[in-house]
Amino acid sequence: MTGGTRASDFEARLLEAADATESMLDSLLTLALLPGETVRPPRFLEAMRYACLGGGKRFRPFLTIETARLFGVKGAGVARAAAAVEMIHCYSLVHDDLPALDNDDLRRGRPTTHKAFGEATAILVGDGLLTYAFDVTADPATHRDPGVRAELVRALARAAGLGGMIGGQVLDLEAEQAREPHQAGAVIQLQSMKTGALLLYAVEAGAILGQAQAPARAALSRYGRALGAAFQVADDILDVEADALALGKRAGKDAGRNKATLVAALGIEAAREQRDSFVAAAIAALDSFTQGTKATVLKEAAHFVGTRTH
Amino acid sequence: MTGGTRASDFEARLLEAADATESMLDSLLTLALLPGETVRPPRFLEAMRYACLGGGKRFRPFLTIETARLFGVKGAGVARAAAAVEMIHCYSLVHDDLPALDNDDLRRGRPTTHKAFGEATAILVGDGLLTYAFDVTADPATHRDPGVRAELVRALARAAGLGGMIGGQVLDLEAEQAREPHQAGAVIQLQSMKTGALLLYAVEAGAILGQAQAPARAALSRYGRALGAAFQVADDILDVEADALALGKRAGKDAGRNKATLVAALGIEAAREQRDSFVAAAIAALDSFTQGTKATVLKEAAHFVGTRTH
Repeated sequence: MTGGTRASDFEARLLEAADATESMLDSLLTLALLPGETVRPPRFLEAMRYACLGGGKRFRPFLTIETARLFGVKGAGVARAAAAVEMIHCYSLVHDDLPALDNDDLRRGRPTTHKAFGEATAILVGDGLLTYAFDVTADPATHRDPGVRAELVRALARAAGLGGMIGGQVLDLEAEQAREPHQAGAVIQLQSMKTGALLLYAVEAGAILGQAQAPARAALSRYGRALGAAFQVADDILDVEADALALGKRAGKDAGRNKATLVAALGIEAAREQRDSFVAAAIAALDSFTQGTKATVLKEAAHFVGTRTH
Repeated sequence: MTGGTRASDFEARLLEAADATESMLDSLLTLALLPGETVRPPRFLEAMRYACLGGGKRFRPFLTIETARLFGVKGAGVARAAAAVEMIHCYSLVHDDLPALDNDDLRRGRPTTHKAFGEATAILVGDGLLTYAFDVTADPATHRDPGVRAELVRALARAAGLGGMIGGQVLDLEAEQAREPHQAGAVIQLQSMKTGALLLYAVEAGAILGQAQAPARAALSRYGRALGAAFQVADDILDVEADALALGKRAGKDAGRNKATLVAALGIEAAREQRDSFVAAAIAALDSFTQGTKATVLKEAAHFVGTRTH
């Protein structure tokens, strides 16, 4: 599993990362108490598991796991860091779905957490996942070097915080209330925060775990930034194209709400071109990884982002 | 400010800690971007400041600052760690006040965050403060030793998480829906999580920042645990005694909701005895600090918890 990589390995690696993440999330979200904990309320834990387990491509964990692998770092520590990124992603979905925010009843074809467990529990589930992500990241089991753990925590908090994901969510809400159409530049900025920052962290986390040197760090950051941008444009395009059944959520909802999307700002053809250009930039950023075919899977991931249909 | 301490210094030290915390929160919650941040949405930042600034005794930051001082550690790093604890406390109030949870309109005599800024913003403000607390704690400016920062993060996350504060909030909601009266043991357990865990962390954070040896750590943990217990019983007693004007929130609301309180479980006289016994245990835990009068301010803090009237 650690040897050379062919382009066709990508899907296998994606599934492998999803399995490792699912398994790690499953083992972290149990009734077993950690030192300092008194009780984990069982019904609440069930709701946290509902919000986190059994769904999603686990694309963010995949990015962390594959980036760390570039530096020969793998195993349970990487899976913990990867599971923590996924917890942040899942918490953001739980809170975004709440009645006061996007008011969504379905997520991946299932009732959203507040529909299944009630609104109070859903708010606390989000808080619980967000908090637990930092516990998991800071724990010595994630990496033996405390400098690595502290750096991961700070980078994760910053990516997820008021100048990153949460700030992007705020801008998105504000954009929805605007009456005029949104400018492409503002949309890209908003999306780089709302979606891009955590995807970028997922890549950077692998580099931090791998204690990568500055040039590799910089190249991977360029990759992560372009990949995140491509990911969100692709999502906007899918929203326009897909039907409700395939996505498991109401399709076309973005347009109905004056959501800030690149499709609305540029039209679908220009949006596709923008997406392809981001994908190309992501792949080009990895040109400096010349050892063997090491970065092939990450390049394939960028290609996947540009061509996925769900 | 670093020399010997008389008992009467307590109130001055409490005010000093509140000033340092307010000032640190004020400087952390600005539009100035940190590396990796793109934009801090101004109106949202205003809501975060509303939720955090200009109120409260800052008792948790005081505990961190005074405990760290026992080990000769003081200054901006300690104030950062203390401000982070307060951010967690403030976030928990913002989310607890939401319509789906306690549905409170007033907090410290002012409209709650969701009343002032809307529910969507309040949810995100809580998320933002929770996230920022970990950024601040993990940053090198908090302590030069990354081992200290990683340990702080993990301890804070665990205290605030599903086996600590959030778990306690869940148990509290469940207790509210129960029809039978609550047992004293269950109430103490619930409160040790909901309120106690973060107060305990506030003390332990000072010991971690001070890189205290194991016996001192253990003594301070005993102190923090007893202090947290005393704090919550005192709060229950105050709720029964105080009128709405003095507290700035609807008094007597606990009884009206079958809230799990020690007053309801034991009666007010036995609750007062329990409180005094916790205070005595907190003070006794500090007996091992025999150098000069160093732990006097923390002992006075325990006394304050037992005798405060608002």
